[in-house]
Amino acid sequence: MNSPREVRRAIRERRHTGHTAGLARGYVQGNVCILPSEYAEEFRLFCERNPKPCPLLTMSEPGNPGLPALGEDLDIRTDVPRYRVFRNGVLESEVPDLNALWRSDLVTFVLGCSFSFEEALMADGLSLRYVEQGRNVPMYRTSVDTIPAGRFHGKLVVSMRPFKPADAIRAIEITSRYPRVHGSPVHMGFPESIGIRDLDQPWAGDPTEVRDGEVPLFWACGITPQSVVLDAKPSLCITHSPGHMLVTDLENASLASA
Amino acid sequence: MNSPREVRRAIRERRHTGHTAGLARGYVQGNVCILPSEYAEEFRLFCERNPKPCPLLTMSEPGNPGLPALGEDLDIRTDVPRYRVFRNGVLESEVPDLNALWRSDLVTFVLGCSFSFEEALMADGLSLRYVEQGRNVPMYRTSVDTIPAGRFHGKLVVSMRPFKPADAIRAIEITSRYPRVHGSPVHMGFPESIGIRDLDQPWAGDPTEVRDGEVPLFWACGITPQSVVLDAKPSLCITHSPGHMLVTDLENASLASA
Repeated sequence: MNSPREVRRAIRERRHTGHTAGLARGYVQGNVCILPSEYAEEFRLFCERNPKPCPLLTMSEPGNPGLPALGEDLDIRTDVPRYRVFRNGVLESEVPDLNALWRSDLVTFVLGCSFSFEEALMADGLSLRYVEQGRNVPMYRTSVDTIPAGRFHGKLVVSMRPFKPADAIRAIEITSRYPRVHGSPVHMGFPESIGIRDLDQPWAGDPTEVRDGEVPLFWACGITPQSVVLDAKPSLCITHSPGHMLVTDLENASLASA
Repeated sequence: MNSPREVRRAIRERRHTGHTAGLARGYVQGNVCILPSEYAEEFRLFCERNPKPCPLLTMSEPGNPGLPALGEDLDIRTDVPRYRVFRNGVLESEVPDLNALWRSDLVTFVLGCSFSFEEALMADGLSLRYVEQGRNVPMYRTSVDTIPAGRFHGKLVVSMRPFKPADAIRAIEITSRYPRVHGSPVHMGFPESIGIRDLDQPWAGDPTEVRDGEVPLFWACGITPQSVVLDAKPSLCITHSPGHMLVTDLENASLASA
C-alpha cells in the first residue's frame, strides 16, 4: 500500500481505519477543515494572513467533495479514516465518513502538515527525539496573536524540536525551503519570550527533553487553525481526527521551494 | 563612480586609493590571495574542502593577471587599491600595485566576502549593530579545525552578529541562499563550545554587545584562509590590504541560490 491512491482506496473501502503516519511515504498528508460557505472567505483570508500556522494547500468549491489538485479520484467524504464533527465549537461525534452529513454549502480546506518537513529533516540525517522515542511532538499555546480575519482570531500554537546548534542551523535552512508546510521556525531559544512558562508542560503532545547545549526551535503548528476555528463557534465544523490525515498525491519534494 | 568597471579604472589610475566599502553597491567584492604555482593546487583543494570559510569565486591561470570571470578588463596587478606582500609568512611591505612584483608563476585566488550577504540582510530590514555603530564586525579564532590540504591547515576564524530570535532565523534563511559568500552560520548560541571564552575580546575587529534576549550567530570568516596561508609560510603570498577589496562585475543577487 505504497501509493497515495491505494491508501485512499483502502480508507474508502474501510480496509484501513487507523492513523496515517508512515503510509505513502514521500507524499504530503494534509490537515482537513470543512466549513459552511458562510465562513469560507473569512477562513481563506485567515490562512492567507497567517501562512506559517495555516499553509493552505487547496480549497474546494462549495458542495464539491472533489479536490483534483490533490488527487483525481479524491473524495473528501470518504477518504479520511476518521472525522470529528463540531457544532458551535463543541465536539459532537467522531464518524468514519461524511456521506450522511454532506451538504451543498460545505467548503473543504486542506492545510500542509509538519510530516513533510520532518521527512526532509530526517533525510538530511537530523534526528527527531520524539520520533526516536515513539512519542508525539510537544505543542504549546503561545502569547503571540495570529492576525485576525473576520470571526477568526486567537493565539499561535507552536511545536518544539530541540537541536544542537549546527543541527538547528541546518533545520532552519531545510524548513525554510518548505513554506507550504509551516516553513522556518517562528522562534528559538527563549520560550518565556513567547509566553511559554514551562517546556515540561506542553498544551498537547508529550514533553521532550532539551539537553545541555541544545537550542529549542519553535515552529508554527497546524493545530492553530483548529483552535482558532473552534473558538469562533461556527454552526458546523468538520476536521480529520488527530493523526488520521488526508493522504494526497503531492510529493513532499514538490513542496521544496529551491 | 557606480559601475565596477569605473571603480577599477579609478583604482588603476590611482584616483582611488582607499577602502572599497560602499563602492559599486550591489556588486561582489572579493578577498584576494596570490601564491606561487607550487602552492596553487594545495590551496585550491583547501578551499574545496572548506567552502564556508573559503568560498572560491575564481582562480587564474599561472602568470595570467586577467580574471575574465570577474571582469573583462580586470588586471589583478593594478585593480586593488593596496596590497600586502608576505615572504615566508612575514609582512614585508604594502604596495599600490604589483607591476614590479609580478611573475610568470603567480596564481590568483578570489574568495567571496560577507559584504554580499550583509547587503542582503540589510535589504530585508535586518539591522547590523556594528554597521550602525560604524565599527568592524568582531572576529574570533575558534577551537574548530579546518580540513587540512597539504601544507595548509589551522583553526577556523568566525565573525559574530547578534540578533533577536526571529531575526536570527531570518538571517540564517537569507545567508543559506549565499553559499558562495560563506553561506549560513557555522554556530549559534554557545560561544564556549567552539572555544570562544569571552565575546568582549575579539581576535580582530571591534567588540559588539549581545543584548538580553539576543542570540549570537557565528559565520565562517574570510580571514581564515589568510591566517592558514601565513601559518604555512609560503615563500611569497600577496593579499589585498584589509578593507581594500577587489571590486568585481558579479552582482550580489547572482550569488543567491534560489
